[in-house]
Amino acid sequence: MNVKIKGLLYSGKAKDILETDDPEVVAIRFRDDITAGDGEKKDTLEMKGYYNSLISAKIFEVLEDAGVATQYLELHEPGCILARRLEMIPLEVITRNIAAGSIVRRFPFREGQEFRPPLIQIDYKSDEHGDPMLNDDIILALGLATREELDEIRSITLRINDVLTEFFRSRSLVLPDFKLEFGRDSNGDIRLGDEISPDTCRLWDMATGEPLDKDIFRRGESGVVSAYRRVAEMILDPEDIERWKVKL
Amino acid sequence: MNVKIKGLLYSGKAKDILETDDPEVVAIRFRDDITAGDGEKKDTLEMKGYYNSLISAKIFEVLEDAGVATQYLELHEPGCILARRLEMIPLEVITRNIAAGSIVRRFPFREGQEFRPPLIQIDYKSDEHGDPMLNDDIILALGLATREELDEIRSITLRINDVLTEFFRSRSLVLPDFKLEFGRDSNGDIRLGDEISPDTCRLWDMATGEPLDKDIFRRGESGVVSAYRRVAEMILDPEDIERWKVKL
Ligand SMILES: Nc1ncnc2c1ncn2[C@@H]1O[C@H](COP(=O)(O)OP(=O)(O)O)[C@@H](O)[C@H]1O
Ligand SMILES: Nc1ncnc2c1ncn2[C@@H]1O[C@H](COP(=O)(O)OP(=O)(O)O)[C@@H](O)[C@H]1O
Ligand SMILES: [Mg+2]
Ligand SMILES: [Mg+2]
Repeated sequence: MNVKIKGLLYSGKAKDILETDDPEVVAIRFRDDITAGDGEKKDTLEMKGYYNSLISAKIFEVLEDAGVATQYLELHEPGCILARRLEMIPLEVITRNIAAGSIVRRFPFREGQEFRPPLIQIDYKSDEHGDPMLNDDIILALGLATREELDEIRSITLRINDVLTEFFRSRSLVLPDFKLEFGRDSNGDIRLGDEISPDTCRLWDMATGEPLDKDIFRRGESGVVSAYRRVAEMILDPEDIERWKVKL
Repeated sequence: MNVKIKGLLYSGKAKDILETDDPEVVAIRFRDDITAGDGEKKDTLEMKGYYNSLISAKIFEVLEDAGVATQYLELHEPGCILARRLEMIPLEVITRNIAAGSIVRRFPFREGQEFRPPLIQIDYKSDEHGDPMLNDDIILALGLATREELDEIRSITLRINDVLTEFFRSRSLVLPDFKLEFGRDSNGDIRLGDEISPDTCRLWDMATGEPLDKDIFRRGESGVVSAYRRVAEMILDPEDIERWKVKL
């Protein structure tokens, strides 16, 4: 894809969104910044953005191949993805297959218990309000999405969960939970945006059960980037490594 | 109704539940204790239980007359109601017609904005967990209610909101929001339980807009009991005062 990357549109806690000479296309630059606990815990970990961009690109391709409408256009270069510009919906759509993290602290679930069917939790993406959990009535009353959009977001999310659970399983990874963000494209259609990476998923090594995701950082342990590299190694195919000209 | 009240079954923050010689019937004794902010703020206000029992009895009668299935059997004496014993479902079902209180602090709603349709919020009734907000998936995963029960609770709640909004309007009171608790009767059917009173509703004087409910206590102001008596005066009919032999 032949687009010219231009100025910064906006910058979040982990990524920069840049304009291109095509108004419908943005470049998503994955930075090395990592945060946890509403931004209380912060660090910069060399190569984290590099691996996350590769992992995200691969997963978006898996989803597109399965017929899921996403933002994804291509990996521009390691660290940077070209994507459709979306009007983002400020919702964090969390899908849980296994109880871990905040859900266990807040409600009487047993750590490690399976959710069948998977449990969907939707939080309000708002640093100002501390990302509180929402319900459908509140989402509609705040005007964040329509009833139809919400139903579609839920059904796409369950489909993504099926596709990703199976994909990760085939790569010897367990997917306990993950967070998605959706937006509206220029036709007003819902598409999956943002990223899918060890920053936004729990991912466990199927053989050992050890986390290969941001929980390592949350716990203040070392080895974050080597875990992320491990995930990239496990999910990228030899052809991906060749066409993307990357080193793992 | 001729039942004999026996020992204490359990005691909550504002009411005692007593056994009777009929295993399907309990006596609900309204105490003068009042609490706010998860029990942080506490007091005992003489006659509060008296008025709340009368207000609750009247409202349960209004609901039964409208065909809503409730726990209510009769006012045993001022301060005490006879009710069907229910297996309580630990949900606090909150209906909001006008934005006030916690919803305005937690989300970007404007104080006083109208919710049309009304907004339903369901909290987990658990002092241990701090009454966190739930969503349907979490309610089902916790096994607190079935899908069918949840749908029925929502539809009964909306019907109650219609009936009560109109009843209070006819008595020059505005109903911004209220909390309900439901339970299962001996047939496994869903019935409205607990109480409906100024402890569990916001109620505003339609003429002046002033609160006649627990918000007076939450704000640390005086005149709580006289406001509750005023509500009783506004909603009890002369016939109620006569048959119940009460003084307001
Ligand atoms: N395709 C897209 N078009 C426009 N904005 C996007 C797209 N994908 C993601 N974004 C937004 O880019 C911003 C930057 O990402 P990130 O650094 O993760 O920010 P945040 O700190 O808000 O999570 C986020 O607000 C995200 O919603
Ligand atoms: N019809 C009923 N049968 C059995 N229990 C009931 C019934 N109605 C209400 N209860 C329960 O009685 C308890 C006492 O009420 P309350 O003092 O308000 O307690 P709490 O502090 O738990 O809110 C509550 O747990 C409530 O759920
Ligand atoms: Mg983000
Ligand atoms: Mg109570």
